Order: sequence, then C-alpha cells, then structure tokens
Amino acid sequence: MSTENQKNISSLWFSTLQKKICKEFEQLEADFINKKNLNKKPSKFHTKNWQREEGMGGGGTMAVMQGLVFEKVGVNISTVYGKFSEEFQAEIPGADKDPLFWASGISLVAHMKNPHVPAVHMNTRHIVTSKSWFGGGADLSPVFSIEKDTKAFHKALKNCCDRHDSSYYPKFKKWADDYFFIPHRNENRGVGGIFYDYINSGNWTKDFSFTQDVGNTFLKIYSQLVREYMTKPWTEEEKIAQLKKRGRYVEFNLLYDRGTRFGFKTGGYTDAILMSMPPTVIWSSPLEDVT
Amino acid sequence: MSTENQKNISSLWFSTLQKKICKEFEQLEADFINKKNLNKKPSKFHTKNWQREEGMGGGGTMAVMQGLVFEKVGVNISTVYGKFSEEFQAEIPGADKDPLFWASGISLVAHMKNPHVPAVHMNTRHIVTSKSWFGGGADLSPVFSIEKDTKAFHKALKNCCDRHDSSYYPKFKKWADDYFFIPHRNENRGVGGIFYDYINSGNWTKDFSFTQDVGNTFLKIYSQLVREYMTKPWTEEEKIAQLKKRGRYVEFNLLYDRGTRFGFKTGGYTDAILMSMPPTVIWSSPLEDVT
Repeated sequence: MSTENQKNISSLWFSTLQKKICKEFEQLEADFINKKNLNKKPSKFHTKNWQREEGMGGGGTMAVMQGLVFEKVGVNISTVYGKFSEEFQAEIPGADKDPLFWASGISLVAHMKNPHVPAVHMNTRHIVTSKSWFGGGADLSPVFSIEKDTKAFHKALKNCCDRHDSSYYPKFKKWADDYFFIPHRNENRGVGGIFYDYINSGNWTKDFSFTQDVGNTFLKIYSQLVREYMTKPWTEEEKIAQLKKRGRYVEFNLLYDRGTRFGFKTGGYTDAILMSMPPTVIWSSPLEDVT
Repeated sequence: MSTENQKNISSLWFSTLQKKICKEFEQLEADFINKKNLNKKPSKFHTKNWQREEGMGGGGTMAVMQGLVFEKVGVNISTVYGKFSEEFQAEIPGADKDPLFWASGISLVAHMKNPHVPAVHMNTRHIVTSKSWFGGGADLSPVFSIEKDTKAFHKALKNCCDRHDSSYYPKFKKWADDYFFIPHRNENRGVGGIFYDYINSGNWTKDFSFTQDVGNTFLKIYSQLVREYMTKPWTEEEKIAQLKKRGRYVEFNLLYDRGTRFGFKTGGYTDAILMSMPPTVIWSSPLEDVT
C-alpha cells in the first residue's frame, strides 16, 4: 500500500473514532438524565474546525462537551504536515536529514463532574517522516483509586495488546508508568495504562489494526467505568480533592507532556493543544494545615 | 568587599525584605477587617523552612498567607549553592568552566480575592558563579486594567530605576514586555513592569542598592493599589473573569518562566517553586459560547 493511501486510511480512522466516541459520550449524558429523572436536555458536543497558519499545512477538528457527567471533555483530531524546526528535527526519528513530516491523530482528555469517575486520557497517532510509525496510549487518573477498576482498565488494555503481540503489554505498561510520572512531586499522574511509540513492525496493516483496537478498547472500558460511577453521590470534600488532583494534571501537561510540546513546536492550534486543561482547579497551599 | 561578605549582606537583605513585606501585607488584612467592620481575626503568614536534599546545600523559608484580601500570597526566600548540571551549565554566565554556583533571592506572587486588585509578582536575586550579578523584576497582572494604575506602577518603577541609572528603565521595561509574553496566546501576561538580569556595573554596592530599591519600591506602590481596591464590590462575572485570567498565569509559569525552570533544574523545593500557582483557576472551553 502506498504511503499516501496509508495516510488517508489512518486519518479517516481517527475521524471515525472521534465521531464514535462523541456519540457514546453523548449517550452517557442522556442515560444520566434518564437515571436521575431530570427534566433537562442532554448535553451535546460542539465542534470547531481550525487550519494551521500559512507556511504550514493541515488542521483539525476540536469537539468539546461540557455536560452533567463530563465536566469538560475534549476529543480532538488533527492532520498536519510541514517542516520541523531545526531545533526539533534532532528529536524525531527520520527527521535528521529530511525535516518534512506528516502527522495525524486523535487526542482525548476527560475531566468528570463526579469525583468518583476517573479522569482519562487517550491518544493515538500516525506519524510519517522519512520513517513511518504509530504511537499512542491511554491512562486513567482517579482521585480515589479502586483496585478492581484499575485492574479492569489494565486487563482490557492487556487483552487488546495480547491480541496483536504478546510482547506489547509489559513493555507499554512500563512505558506508561515511566512516562506518566511527575518528578517534582515524586508521584504518578494516575494509575497508568499503556504508552507506545515508534511502532513499525514492517506490516503497516497489522500496526494500524493495533492502533484501531486501542481506540475501541479504550472507549468500551472507560464507558463502563463512567456508567458505574456517574450517579454515585459525592461530598464537598471529595469534590475539593478532585480539584486539587487536577492541579497535578496541569503541572504534568505543561511541564512534561510530549504531546503538548509537539503541538507548540509544530505550530498547532493553541485552543486544541490546551483542551487538556481542567475546567476548574485548586492549588492548595502546602502550609494551609499549619493554621 | 569580599564575595563572602557580599553574599552575607545580600541574603540578609532578602530575609529582611521578606519580613517587611509580610508585616505590611498582614497590616492590609487588618485594615480590611476594620474598614468592613468584620468580627474576625486578621490572617497571618505561616512560614516553613526547607533544606535542599543531600549533595546540595542551602534551603529557604516559605511564607504563605491565605486571607480575606490576599486569596493566596507566597513570599519565599532561599539561599542555595552547589553545582549546576552539565546541561544547565551552558545557559548560565560564568558557569561554562566552573559549575559551582551560589544563589540567594526573594520571590513573591500574590493572587487576590478581589478581582479589582491586580495579581502581582516580584523577585530579586543575587547570583554568584565565576561571575557575580543581580537580577529581578516586578510585574502587574490586573484582570481589568486601569490606565492610571498601570501608569502609577510604571512611574514608581521608573523613578526607582532613574535614581540609579537613567539607562535602566527603558531597557528593563522592554525586557519585561518581551519576557512576560505568552507566545501561544499571543498575549502579554499583564501590563508589565521591569525585568533585569546580569547586572554587574563593577560597583557591587551600587548594584545592591538598586536591588534593595526595587524591593522597597514594589512594596510601596503595590500596597497602595491593594488599599485602593480591596473593598471595591465585585460581581460573580468579574470573579469568573479573574479565575480565567489566572489560567494564563499558570500557562506562563509552567511553560516559560525561567525562575520555575531554574528551581527545578537546581533541585529546588517543589512546594516553594510552585507557590506561584493560583489557589483556584478556571479554564473555559473555547467552544463554550457556541452553545
């Protein structure tokens, strides 16, 4: 299959997955309203297309919903191409001699109203320089982690990995543990998941089907978790704990996240890159208990 | 004067200035309670000392207050010494051949309860490698900028600069405009102020007296602004605008701020470095108006 065809197929998939996720998340909003017998119209995603500035090609579609279950969820796709800056070239495989790149992907971050529903992140992408590869991952950030849910999330991702290559899960789980770590806090961002990059087995169709499976697997397991906890009552203290936990998310994304960095370095659309920011956050003072 | 004496004198000054500022800010809290006839005890600063991990020397004192006027204000001093990492060495004057450094300074960030009172930042520092210099600055971040206040703030800093060197203000004002700029938002962080670094005129006493003057000048003009607006009524919308504006502050500090970076690169104390984070923040969705 030609590289052009591969690009078309993968970018079409990211767009399909975006629609599928948005539909399912809107369904969760509708189910919540039914369960709670609320006299409200269920929330819907709003979308916005953006184009890159001149001199750089491509653009993307942001989809954002602020609802009763999802306090703020962004599901963005983008397909961009152009030239890496000289400084950034050295960091990207296959870009050292030829700075041209093409990148397409989907990126999702959900911050939930109910502190018992974990925040989540999922991203999959296809990148083409003089090389070509897939990358991505998904990780869960509960405020109050529950072992059975952590296990279920990891089990679903493990099964997904195992369907494609039995060496994947241990490697990608460890990568997530290493990656989603906040050095200055000496804390993990959440309970992990998988993180993978530079996947090129020599069989594009096989690699593409893994990346599709990651997207579908994420959607299924996360929707289950949302459905289980979205109506669970919570206290003011639990909500505040959630808002504080979100501060760590901000610190990680702005200080360390490669996707955020990649976005800024390649002239990405600021509103789309920073869609990951939580809707509301609290940073407490480390001295507040000293009163 | 020996370098050792210079270090002692400057670090003592930063500590004196910290106490002076804390006293004045506590006075503002007390005055607020009197003006509003509230039956409350005025808020006070809490302090915490910290030491650097082994292999690195020094430490600091954080002072934090969460009050009725100051929603959260941190006034930190630190005096640290050690070796720059190889990677960081190249960025610091005089550290290319000898990685040993000594650094002492004061750093202040105030996030205010009343959205009509600007947030503010002030920092002054003395750094010694194989070279020696002063740096610092102060900048104002109102939510709703008022021209007369912006002018008064700049005027005070200009007068301060002019007392020492008539070439300072234009240079340091421009430096602040360039520095306190958020590229991905194409916005300034606030209405500016001054930013200076690598000051070494050959006359240590003269340079030190400028840095002292910056601290004193900041305290006087900012206290005036706080006093003028701390009792002005505000609306819910104005408070929300303030919480959104704070998101920009977070983005700037975590993505671009040199002080934050310096802190992490030199094994600083996380709670002290991130004292600049606002107590509460909102990131709105760029699509929220599309409803």
